[in-house]
Amino acid sequence: MNIRDLARRYLPILTWGAEYTGKTLTNDLIVAAIVTVMLIPQSLAYALLAGLPVQVGLFASMAPLVLYALFGTSRTLAVGPVAVASLMTAAALSPLAAQGTPEYLGAAIALALISGLMLVAMGLLRLGFLANFLSHPVVAGFITASGIQIATGQLAPVLGIKAHGENFVDLVTSMVPNLGKTNPYTAAIGLGSLGFLFWARSGLKPLLLRFGVGERTAGTLAKIGPAVALVATTLAVWGFGLDGRGVKIVGTVPKGLPRLTLPPFDGGLWAKLAVPALLISVVGYVESISVALTLAAKRRQRVDADQELIALGAANVGAAVSGGFPVTGGLARSVVNFEAGAETPAAGAFTAVGIALATLYLTPLLFFLPNATLAATIIAAVLSLVDVGALKRTWAYSKADFAAMAATILLTLVEGVEAGLIAGVGLAIFLHLYATSKPHIAFVGQLPGTMTFRNVARHEVVTDPGILSLRIDASLYFPNARFIEEKVNEAVAANPEVRHVILECPAVNTIDYSALESLEAVNQRLKDGGITLHLSEVKGPVMDRLKRSHFLEELTGKVHLTHFDAVSSINPDLARRTQEMPRADSQ
Amino acid sequence: MNIRDLARRYLPILTWGAEYTGKTLTNDLIVAAIVTVMLIPQSLAYALLAGLPVQVGLFASMAPLVLYALFGTSRTLAVGPVAVASLMTAAALSPLAAQGTPEYLGAAIALALISGLMLVAMGLLRLGFLANFLSHPVVAGFITASGIQIATGQLAPVLGIKAHGENFVDLVTSMVPNLGKTNPYTAAIGLGSLGFLFWARSGLKPLLLRFGVGERTAGTLAKIGPAVALVATTLAVWGFGLDGRGVKIVGTVPKGLPRLTLPPFDGGLWAKLAVPALLISVVGYVESISVALTLAAKRRQRVDADQELIALGAANVGAAVSGGFPVTGGLARSVVNFEAGAETPAAGAFTAVGIALATLYLTPLLFFLPNATLAATIIAAVLSLVDVGALKRTWAYSKADFAAMAATILLTLVEGVEAGLIAGVGLAIFLHLYATSKPHIAFVGQLPGTMTFRNVARHEVVTDPGILSLRIDASLYFPNARFIEEKVNEAVAANPEVRHVILECPAVNTIDYSALESLEAVNQRLKDGGITLHLSEVKGPVMDRLKRSHFLEELTGKVHLTHFDAVSSINPDLARRTQEMPRADSQ
Repeated sequence: MNIRDLARRYLPILTWGAEYTGKTLTNDLIVAAIVTVMLIPQSLAYALLAGLPVQVGLFASMAPLVLYALFGTSRTLAVGPVAVASLMTAAALSPLAAQGTPEYLGAAIALALISGLMLVAMGLLRLGFLANFLSHPVVAGFITASGIQIATGQLAPVLGIKAHGENFVDLVTSMVPNLGKTNPYTAAIGLGSLGFLFWARSGLKPLLLRFGVGERTAGTLAKIGPAVALVATTLAVWGFGLDGRGVKIVGTVPKGLPRLTLPPFDGGLWAKLAVPALLISVVGYVESISVALTLAAKRRQRVDADQELIALGAANVGAAVSGGFPVTGGLARSVVNFEAGAETPAAGAFTAVGIALATLYLTPLLFFLPNATLAATIIAAVLSLVDVGALKRTWAYSKADFAAMAATILLTLVEGVEAGLIAGVGLAIFLHLYATSKPHIAFVGQLPGTMTFRNVARHEVVTDPGILSLRIDASLYFPNARFIEEKVNEAVAANPEVRHVILECPAVNTIDYSALESLEAVNQRLKDGGITLHLSEVKGPVMDRLKRSHFLEELTGKVHLTHFDAVSSINPDLARRTQEMPRADSQ
Repeated sequence: MNIRDLARRYLPILTWGAEYTGKTLTNDLIVAAIVTVMLIPQSLAYALLAGLPVQVGLFASMAPLVLYALFGTSRTLAVGPVAVASLMTAAALSPLAAQGTPEYLGAAIALALISGLMLVAMGLLRLGFLANFLSHPVVAGFITASGIQIATGQLAPVLGIKAHGENFVDLVTSMVPNLGKTNPYTAAIGLGSLGFLFWARSGLKPLLLRFGVGERTAGTLAKIGPAVALVATTLAVWGFGLDGRGVKIVGTVPKGLPRLTLPPFDGGLWAKLAVPALLISVVGYVESISVALTLAAKRRQRVDADQELIALGAANVGAAVSGGFPVTGGLARSVVNFEAGAETPAAGAFTAVGIALATLYLTPLLFFLPNATLAATIIAAVLSLVDVGALKRTWAYSKADFAAMAATILLTLVEGVEAGLIAGVGLAIFLHLYATSKPHIAFVGQLPGTMTFRNVARHEVVTDPGILSLRIDASLYFPNARFIEEKVNEAVAANPEVRHVILECPAVNTIDYSALESLEAVNQRLKDGGITLHLSEVKGPVMDRLKRSHFLEELTGKVHLTHFDAVSSINPDLARRTQEMPRADSQ
């Protein structure tokens, strides 16, 4: 690969940038304006959710967008703070420092940096498959549980009460005794905003249509409900002086663009953040790549899974050095970006400019913004992530997948996000290994008059008492190697007349070293008992590998092309008898 | 299952006991005498290796043998202290207590009890498959590394110097500076015994044959070389008063049978012992069941893998309550038992009686037994476990298996037994998941004039630019679900004329929930792009499962019996054209 190809591979901007026109520019600018309005309340809210000052949310919505525009392969993905990653950030940092301290902010920056570096490394080493270890039921369970936990936690600011805890159970137990202390003004703002946001989702678009707004514009405007709630409640607090009646407000937000920051380089801190950073990286990547693939498919565009790791990593490194916290590609913002008609990642870069302008000129206007509105924004956003029905669908389809999903939900709610995620991944892998450790093995016999062999339990077949034919319906590898040994051992012990064992291997895609040794042991033990071992229908690649061992030389019998060949080689009368027998298949 | 069947299942003694005759009794008694003589030096030596007083080794060779005789399904397996389990015991206990203290002995007893209870539970819950997670290369690597480490550690008592450390590296670094302090008398006894033992292995049998001893008897007598070395060196120390010249001797061994003991019931201690106990259980079981299967096959006897867990568990509980330490079925002693002609587990029970007699009457004779002889016995035994050639064979056959084996050896030597074993198991599972995460997917086309479809990269085939045919050579489950999504996405993006995608699924043995959702996503995305998705050659059980979801209703195309049917349903001309085309296969 020459320099130019390498540059094109790692800098997709060179590809789409070359086709950029004035028309695309105008379009991307309009899109950026819409997305900016939508992103401001989200960015502020998710910063609070992560336990950080609101401006950190704005910081995390600038550099990452620009860096993703440089490195990302999706034309429409929008990166920034998202709900689940913010919750995971809070969970990772709370044991390390108190919210509001410089140590907490420093740790958040370190978390973004570590996470970013991990993602870049995974991309360069093409380790994107690591994300595959998060099975869909585990991710779905985790996101549902996170959604429930986030919504529960945000009920406290909506009502103006206190709550704390790293999991659902702790949150509820800490919140219930305080319910009596609900601040009526805060609750009115919080629950009012919540009601409006839920109504806006289904009711705002028809209303706009009735007022003559175009279909697409109405759809997009309906998405900026949070911005409307934000403006309205800020005005209400200012107008009625509700901040004097116990309504918590954002207060003074430092004005100005983020400065170059570096996290504390503290070995102990980094070690403690390694596991949370890995989990945030992988979960964030899974969320991001799913959104990217879905949107790309709609326009038949390509997304490069490994390059996406690099782009997301760069975005996080960018978040870190500009004083932000972990970011990822978000579903809601990307859909708005896509539906508003974004054509290139430049729309994202222009959105960053929009946010920068807001940071420079709008922060004084945020003074009277009530925290309750931001909490309501979060609740409205995360409740759409909760999908309890998935439990039922998974149960109907697969008990193993259901178990992994239920374990993830349960442990996330009871123990916290890390425990839930790790338990889910572990259980899914364990159940997969368990399922393959006891594969299906069929005793087969000849369908009368044919060259075909079928399961004796399901078909009327002819068998020879001196020959034991076993069909192995799985690849042979360590979790099932000993099982095969035991099965053959049992079958031979139960059939004392057997003089030949034939293993039919059409479904054996691989034989690992454990299985090879098991086959060698089976061969040796059968030999000691005066029985020969044959194989039939061994696939080409498997045969190639067996030739690299001594197994074929030690094998007491032979490897036959078909099972019929194997049986005929032992019983030469078979071919003749087969022609004389009445045939089972009459075609 | 009625009571009688249940009793027969869990008490195999009821089966073989019913056939027991006077002739069998005489035979088993002779065998027991031979095995007893072989076991005494081994039991003493392995107790020392585990850091315990020598009599604990004798205790661990009584109750376990009797309990295995009651519960075991192998007729010839002999249980007791073995080298690897003794090393693992020392590694588990050393961080918890100092050798020689009552706490250390109590922890050893607790370890045997926890390990025994775990094995019984695994047997009752039929969790024997857990042992399958130890792949053969990991076990082979672990045993080789343990053998190297044990032999290295025992060089110190052979030379009469000091050494300490939980791994090979620490042992060597602690031993080297002391080499100058070698005690010449100890070294003479140790190295002399070692030389004799190595010679006895190959030279003793021919010598006995020359003196007119029968073939089988000579073979068996050659195995009791350690007992000969033990008697000879004990006499030498006593005769020349070498204990006064710095030769360490066993000294006073308390006389008498073991008493009923109970380990300390200390929650903290049990928690610390849980992981080592699990590892000892699983490694011990793997060693034991391999030996049992090998010996059973030679006489076409059955071994029940789950019942063996119960039997081994009972043996360990027995070891614990009689003041012993973890035991398992040993290769050397079982082979002697088998070759001496043991017919039933009663031979094991009689061996226990032999050891009991030794404990009662022979312990004073052990006073002058030099530790160096016992260490030499251990070295001679474990060096036969070291199989460095396995690394080469594994490398030739499979790089992934080699990696797991090498990692196990390296980490065991550098970090210790637990780290080595856990790293090996983890890496083997990881590499398996990695291999299945990127399965083989072939673009297929029609072999001209046939109904057969083959890989376009390997065959001269006919393809239709509007149809994309992909054959998936793997089961679909979470590690590869997203990979399939990406592959289809890429293929469609690269072929803009495609209007139909057909996935050919003859090798798909299962589709889990993650893969189902991926297929749903693929279907939806293709639909958004105006492309239909079809499946062909879906197996019965997979189809049954798909019917329990909504996938088949949402599928834009159909599920076809054969790939040819699928292509013809899209392009009805195909059947006609197929007959007109020149055929590629001219048979």
